[in-house]
Amino acid sequence: MAVLVQKYGGTSVGDAEKIRHVAERIAAARRAGNSIAVVVSAMGDTTDRLIELAESISAAPDPRELDVLLSTGELVSCTLVTMALREIGEEAVSMSGAQAGIRTDTAHGSASIVEFDAERVQQALDAGRIVIVAGFQGVTHEMDVTTLGRGGSDTTAVALAAALGAERCEVYTDVDGIYTADPRIVPDARKLSEIGYEEMLELASYGAKMHPRSIELAAWYNTPVLVASSARDVPGTLIHDVASAGADGPEGEGMEVANKVRGVTYERGVARITLRAVPDRPGIAAAVFEPLAESNISVDTIVQNASAERLTDLSFTVDRSDLRAALEVTQGVAGTIGAGECVSHDNLGQVSIVGTGMQNAPGVAAVMFSALAEAGVNIEMITTSQIRITCVVDEAQVNDAVRTLHSAFELGEG
Amino acid sequence: MAVLVQKYGGTSVGDAEKIRHVAERIAAARRAGNSIAVVVSAMGDTTDRLIELAESISAAPDPRELDVLLSTGELVSCTLVTMALREIGEEAVSMSGAQAGIRTDTAHGSASIVEFDAERVQQALDAGRIVIVAGFQGVTHEMDVTTLGRGGSDTTAVALAAALGAERCEVYTDVDGIYTADPRIVPDARKLSEIGYEEMLELASYGAKMHPRSIELAAWYNTPVLVASSARDVPGTLIHDVASAGADGPEGEGMEVANKVRGVTYERGVARITLRAVPDRPGIAAAVFEPLAESNISVDTIVQNASAERLTDLSFTVDRSDLRAALEVTQGVAGTIGAGECVSHDNLGQVSIVGTGMQNAPGVAAVMFSALAEAGVNIEMITTSQIRITCVVDEAQVNDAVRTLHSAFELGEG
Repeated sequence: MAVLVQKYGGTSVGDAEKIRHVAERIAAARRAGNSIAVVVSAMGDTTDRLIELAESISAAPDPRELDVLLSTGELVSCTLVTMALREIGEEAVSMSGAQAGIRTDTAHGSASIVEFDAERVQQALDAGRIVIVAGFQGVTHEMDVTTLGRGGSDTTAVALAAALGAERCEVYTDVDGIYTADPRIVPDARKLSEIGYEEMLELASYGAKMHPRSIELAAWYNTPVLVASSARDVPGTLIHDVASAGADGPEGEGMEVANKVRGVTYERGVARITLRAVPDRPGIAAAVFEPLAESNISVDTIVQNASAERLTDLSFTVDRSDLRAALEVTQGVAGTIGAGECVSHDNLGQVSIVGTGMQNAPGVAAVMFSALAEAGVNIEMITTSQIRITCVVDEAQVNDAVRTLHSAFELGEG
Repeated sequence: MAVLVQKYGGTSVGDAEKIRHVAERIAAARRAGNSIAVVVSAMGDTTDRLIELAESISAAPDPRELDVLLSTGELVSCTLVTMALREIGEEAVSMSGAQAGIRTDTAHGSASIVEFDAERVQQALDAGRIVIVAGFQGVTHEMDVTTLGRGGSDTTAVALAAALGAERCEVYTDVDGIYTADPRIVPDARKLSEIGYEEMLELASYGAKMHPRSIELAAWYNTPVLVASSARDVPGTLIHDVASAGADGPEGEGMEVANKVRGVTYERGVARITLRAVPDRPGIAAAVFEPLAESNISVDTIVQNASAERLTDLSFTVDRSDLRAALEVTQGVAGTIGAGECVSHDNLGQVSIVGTGMQNAPGVAAVMFSALAEAGVNIEMITTSQIRITCVVDEAQVNDAVRTLHSAFELGEG
């Protein structure tokens, strides 16, 4: 009997009617002959309301106490889903994170799973029961409740699937899969039937959102994750090891599947800082970026041009909301290291194409650059990774750039 | 350093402002040099709302699941009180029932405490912390969450006080103590400064309500319980072993204190059934009352007169809402056992005087009966216990009877 782990997000269990609907879906999967463990998030905006409640008491709630408070949201939803299953005649049992065997470190508010002893879950499954596990939570070795922070319930689900050796982790949410591009910008954006773990990491900024952490965990344990709609019964997107799935991959595209552009992603609200005439010597990058990290400013793209006469230009992008603070820090550094002027540009965005194996397909970059050129989009910066090529462009041209690239790589429905 | 256990009910922690107020009270007790452990109920109507939520999913929610659901109410309030304490600079830590060491049987919804290992609470107290324990909940040996049923949080508080060997368990609620009579009926009803455990069991039907179960537990461990207002800083009522407190008793009335009428209590909505000409032979009472018990009808007062010519009259009272069902059962039984007619009266009430040691003070009963006679109150039935004399009277005369007795025993403020 195949073991499936299903995960339902907060919107999917937002009220009694939705909970009954989720129970019907779970029961259908059980009746189809599978062994089912389910992970649920807190109902709707419960977590936000609990945080508000805590903040009405304390400006900086104690992390240990806040974790216990927040963990109640998932206890509520997991017992309700269990009741709904029992109401329709299914043997179901709820488990808290502690009961499910999720041991974490003591980093309250953003705990990491250190051990997942799924024996109690496994025993219940063996006894023919459906197990409903409270997502987002675990317990320390001292039995203090912790929460897993952002992406917590997805992480619980993937970790449970890995611990059970499940055939698949199914993540049900309010969107029905991963798209080649944002459908609001590209009307003929196509839902992908499959995608690799790394590609998902790069594409996950819209459409079905999964926290990178849960994808990394799935990749590490090679656990296939299906992202699909909890409301509609349509095929979702399978996140798995596309390359090794090979000719048996769901799209049946064989080994070539690994060498394709999978989708186009973008970001707005990007600001760039350029530090001119930076002395090109060891330690300069650290001198610039350490103070930024200390000021809690997250730096995205960094480009340092090859140097002429031992002076170089160093550019990097930050979120626009961080620009003022970042400039202040950088100007301070500029004096210290003897660099030239410090200039900024705050109306930028970026577009990326994502796909496994780009480093083996140099033509891809050429297609991207010429397509953007033909569309009159000026490229301000370029960075590349194994599976992504990103161009920083004028923010006003982001939509054009996305549509141009989606069409240039023939990603649409047609 | 004296160990005090405080308990705050749902109304006392009903919103953020009330929680801050409770925190101030706890902090004051701590700063006065005590070691403090606190038990809290769920905020306001939280438990009712959770039950509604469960019933919107399932007509008969699974008891194990319902217990997890309900237990979240107290987790929320105990973390919020802890946060409020930390906000005002107190070292405080919350504990779930499980963390506090409350082991129960597996009777979900009405579990009994089988073991209270308060070591973790004690360690935290020893480290100078205030410990806030979630009331109403425990955990089975399989680490399944249970709730303690009615009076649950009071029971948690008394049990914790007993386990810690606390000097006193202070129960803060929305009324400020135990009164000699219902102040709505008797304007000069007086708040008692102290009362015995058994007396409290008999008087607890109005004023500060504590479930008999928690009083019995306090009596068993001889744990003094102070019932007082959480809103106003006025003296409450100390429930303790009045007799052995003797000359040191708070009222300073010496050993005689054990032989007094403590208060007057009453009930409305009483119905009586009389079975006439019952054959006076062994097994008859069982034949009447077993079928009533099987029909889940609770019988209160039972009176069987001394028999003449081996025939007796058997009377008993039930709650008026149970009269119709009780009559049906009893009429059936009457035929079987060869009894005479079965008559009922449904407009009755009862008044009782309560006080320890009545059996040693026969004059008390005489004062009661003559006072009622002078007031023109006809006595329909009489029953007595060690610490209570109860008269069943016409419901319309209940208020008169209560006022008459309160005055006859000089219980008022004057």
